[in-house]
Amino acid sequence: MLIAFASDYGLVDEFVGVCKAVILGLAPNAVVIDLGHDLPPHDVRAGALLLVRAVQYLPEDSILLAVIDPGVGTDRRLVAVEVEGGMMLGPDNGLLAPAAAMAGGARTVVVLDNPDYQLPAPGPTFAGRDVLAPAAGHLAAGTPLLELGTQVDPITLVPGLVSLPEKHGGGAVSGEVWWVDRFGNCQLNIDPDELAASGARPGAYVEVRSTREIRSARWVHTYAHAKPSELVLLVDSYGLLSLALHRESAAALLGVRAASPITLVPEGTSTDSTDAP
Amino acid sequence: MLIAFASDYGLVDEFVGVCKAVILGLAPNAVVIDLGHDLPPHDVRAGALLLVRAVQYLPEDSILLAVIDPGVGTDRRLVAVEVEGGMMLGPDNGLLAPAAAMAGGARTVVVLDNPDYQLPAPGPTFAGRDVLAPAAGHLAAGTPLLELGTQVDPITLVPGLVSLPEKHGGGAVSGEVWWVDRFGNCQLNIDPDELAASGARPGAYVEVRSTREIRSARWVHTYAHAKPSELVLLVDSYGLLSLALHRESAAALLGVRAASPITLVPEGTSTDSTDAP
Amino acid sequence: MLIAFASDYGLVDEFVGVCKAVILGLAPNAVVIDLGHDLPPHDVRAGALLLVRAVQYLPEDSILLAVIDPGVGTDRRLVAVEVEGGMMLGPDNGLLAPAAAMAGGARTVVVLDNPDYQLPAPGPTFAGRDVLAPAAGHLAAGTPLLELGTQVDPITLVPGLVSLPEKHGGGAVSGEVWWVDRFGNCQLNIDPDELAASGARPGAYVEVRSTREIRSARWVHTYAHAKPSELVLLVDSYGLLSLALHRESAAALLGVRAASPITLVPEGTSTDSTDAP
Repeated sequence: MLIAFASDYGLVDEFVGVCKAVILGLAPNAVVIDLGHDLPPHDVRAGALLLVRAVQYLPEDSILLAVIDPGVGTDRRLVAVEVEGGMMLGPDNGLLAPAAAMAGGARTVVVLDNPDYQLPAPGPTFAGRDVLAPAAGHLAAGTPLLELGTQVDPITLVPGLVSLPEKHGGGAVSGEVWWVDRFGNCQLNIDPDELAASGARPGAYVEVRSTREIRSARWVHTYAHAKPSELVLLVDSYGLLSLALHRESAAALLGVRAASPITLVPEGTSTDSTDAP
Repeated sequence: MLIAFASDYGLVDEFVGVCKAVILGLAPNAVVIDLGHDLPPHDVRAGALLLVRAVQYLPEDSILLAVIDPGVGTDRRLVAVEVEGGMMLGPDNGLLAPAAAMAGGARTVVVLDNPDYQLPAPGPTFAGRDVLAPAAGHLAAGTPLLELGTQVDPITLVPGLVSLPEKHGGGAVSGEVWWVDRFGNCQLNIDPDELAASGARPGAYVEVRSTREIRSARWVHTYAHAKPSELVLLVDSYGLLSLALHRESAAALLGVRAASPITLVPEGTSTDSTDAP
Repeated sequence: MLIAFASDYGLVDEFVGVCKAVILGLAPNAVVIDLGHDLPPHDVRAGALLLVRAVQYLPEDSILLAVIDPGVGTDRRLVAVEVEGGMMLGPDNGLLAPAAAMAGGARTVVVLDNPDYQLPAPGPTFAGRDVLAPAAGHLAAGTPLLELGTQVDPITLVPGLVSLPEKHGGGAVSGEVWWVDRFGNCQLNIDPDELAASGARPGAYVEVRSTREIRSARWVHTYAHAKPSELVLLVDSYGLLSLALHRESAAALLGVRAASPITLVPEGTSTDSTDAP
C-alpha cells in the first residue's frame, strides 16, 4: 500500500525518517513516498494547497499522511478521513479538508484517540511520530479504521480556507497567488475560463497588477514560448493560470509570494480604478 | 530488511542515490529510508546525536548506515557493529558509539577490510559507496557479518563525546544545546528531573542564560502553550528539556546553536555568580 | 525494477512525489530512488554530468528517469533510450546522450508520442508527470518499449556537450571545473594520466590557475592528507582530478564554479604565458 507523506518537518532533522521507520515497523510492505517536507513551518494553507494539487495523482487505496501541526499538544484533533479511493491522516486544522473535498468528500472521520495504536511518548510534541505514523502503519497493515479511535460526523471537520477570485468592472479579475513553485512561477486562483469571460484570449496581452508592479503579460501556450525577460501568462499543468518569466522568477519580478493579491485586466479593456484594487 | 541511512552527503549531489543503487543492486528487497543527509559537513557530534535520537524507533533487525567521515581515505576504520536487534555501519570515529550504547552496547564489531565485499574504487575518497553501501547490501542479502572483515574487540570502538550537565550552587544547572531543530527549538542535555531537583516546577519560571542573553522562560506542557513572543521550556518528544518560542526560533532569540552553553536557574532561587557561568 | 530519478524539480514542491505516485500507480512493485532533484534549474549540462557519474552504479535492468527540460511544451522530443543493461527516459536535449554513451551507446530510441501511455494534461507544462513518469511506470510493468511511441534512429539523439582538456607548452593542461560538490571539492575534466604526462607526480606541487587566483596545490592521496588551509589535488572517487581544501570549499578559495576554466601547470616546469590561459 502506498503512503504519500507531506509535512513541514524539513529534511535536515530526522523527523521524517523516524516517522517512516515507525510506519515500516508496523507495515513492512508499505511503500512511503514524499510529497514534500519543506513546506513553510506551520503554514497550513500552503500544505492544504499542496495536497489539493497532489491528491488526484495518488493511486487507488493510497494513504495520504500530512503533518503541519502548529497546535501540536493542544486539544486540536488528529483524524483519519476516509474518502473514495483512500484515506487521509493529519491534524484537523484545515489541512485535509480541501483535499478531502477534491477527492469527493469525507465519508468517515475517526478521531485518533485510541492509545493502543499510539506510541508511548515522553512529551506531547511529536504527534507525527507518536500518533499519525502509527495510525498509517496500522491501517496499511490492515487494522480497520474504526479501531483507531472515535468516529465523528464528517461535518465537524475544520474547513480549509480556499480563496475565490472576484470580478470587477472593466473585465478585471482579482485573485491571489496560491503557490510560487521552485522556478518562480506563480499559480493563481483564477482559472482560464474566468479570464476568457472577461474578454482575454490566448495570444493577447493582459495587464498584471501586484501590490508593487503593473506589468503586461502575454497569454502563451507554454513556458518556452516566453521571450527572454518577457512576462507570460499560461494555463499550467493543473489547469489554472500561472505567471511565468523566461527561465527566471516571475515572483521576484512582481514582488509576490504565496497569498499575495493579483489583479488581471485584459488589455484593450478599461477598468475603474475605484473598483479594482 | 530496513536500512536507515544518515550522512553529511547532502541531497544536491548524487552521493546518496548512488549508495542506494549499490545497496539495492545487492539486496533488491531491502528498503532504504533516509534519516537525514543535510547534517553539517564533517560534524560527527551532530550525527552521533541524531543517531541516538533515531535508533530507538527503528524496527527490529534494521541496519543503520551512517556516514560522516572527515577522515575518509586515512587509516580510520570502517566498522559493522552488531547490537541487540540490529546492525550499525559507519566510520569508527565516535559516530556510532553513542547509538550503540543506547541500543544496549556493541556485541560484535567487525572492521570492513575484506575487499571481496567492496567495490573497486578509482580513488579512496568515497567509502560510503565503495565499502559501507556494499556492506549494507551484503548484510541485507544474508551474508554473515564475520565474512565482511576482521572481528575486533568492541572495547576498541572510538567513543563518542557526549557532554553531561553540571549542578551549581543556588539551583543552577549548566549544560549545552545538543540540537537546534528546523523550528529553532533548542534541545538541551538536561533532563526534567535534574531541573526539578533544583527546585523548578512545571508552570513556574526559569532563568535561561546563554552567552549573549539572560531571559525568563515558563515551563509549559507543549509548544502551543507559549504566548506570542514568549520563551518557554518544555519536555520534548525525547524526554529532554527544550527551549522554544511561539512559532519562532528560540535559537535565534538566545543567539545559540548546537554545542552552545546554557545555564538554567529556577526563579525565586538565588545563585552565586561566581559559581554559575 | 529499480527506477533512478534525477531532475531539477527541487524537493520543496510536490513535483517529485507526484511523479513517483504516477509511477507506482502503474508499477506497484517498482522501487524509485532519487539521484538528486536540486540540480540548478534548466541546467542540462549539470544534469548530464550527474548522470554520467551515476549510471555506472545502477543495477542491471534499471530505468534512469531524468528531467531537466527547459523546452517543455515545445517540439523538443521526449525519448526512451535503450542501452545495454537498462533504459533511459528524458527530454532529448543532450541530457541523456553522454550517459547513454557511457553505458555503451543507444541501441534503440523511441519518441514517447503514443498518447495511450500518457496522462491527460490540462496544460503542456509538466511532461515529467504526464509523459515520462507514465512511460517509466509502463516499462517497469512490462509494456514493450516499442509500444510507447515511434522508433527513431539513435543517430538523431541530440548530443551532450562534454568539454575536453587541452595541452599547452610547458606542461600546462587547461580544462574546466565539471562539478563542485557539497563539500566545495572541484572535479576537473582532466584525468590524472594527462597531468602525469605533463610531468606532475603524486606528492609534488602543481600550479592551479583560475580566472581569479593562482595557487599551488600538492598532489595527495586523499582529502584528509590536506593540512589546514592547504589546497590539494587528488584522484577522486570517479578517477578524475579534483581540487580540495581541508574541510573547506576549494571552489570558494579559487572563485570557481561548474564550467569555470582551470589550468594546471606542474611546478618546476615553466610555461609560456602567451600559450596557456
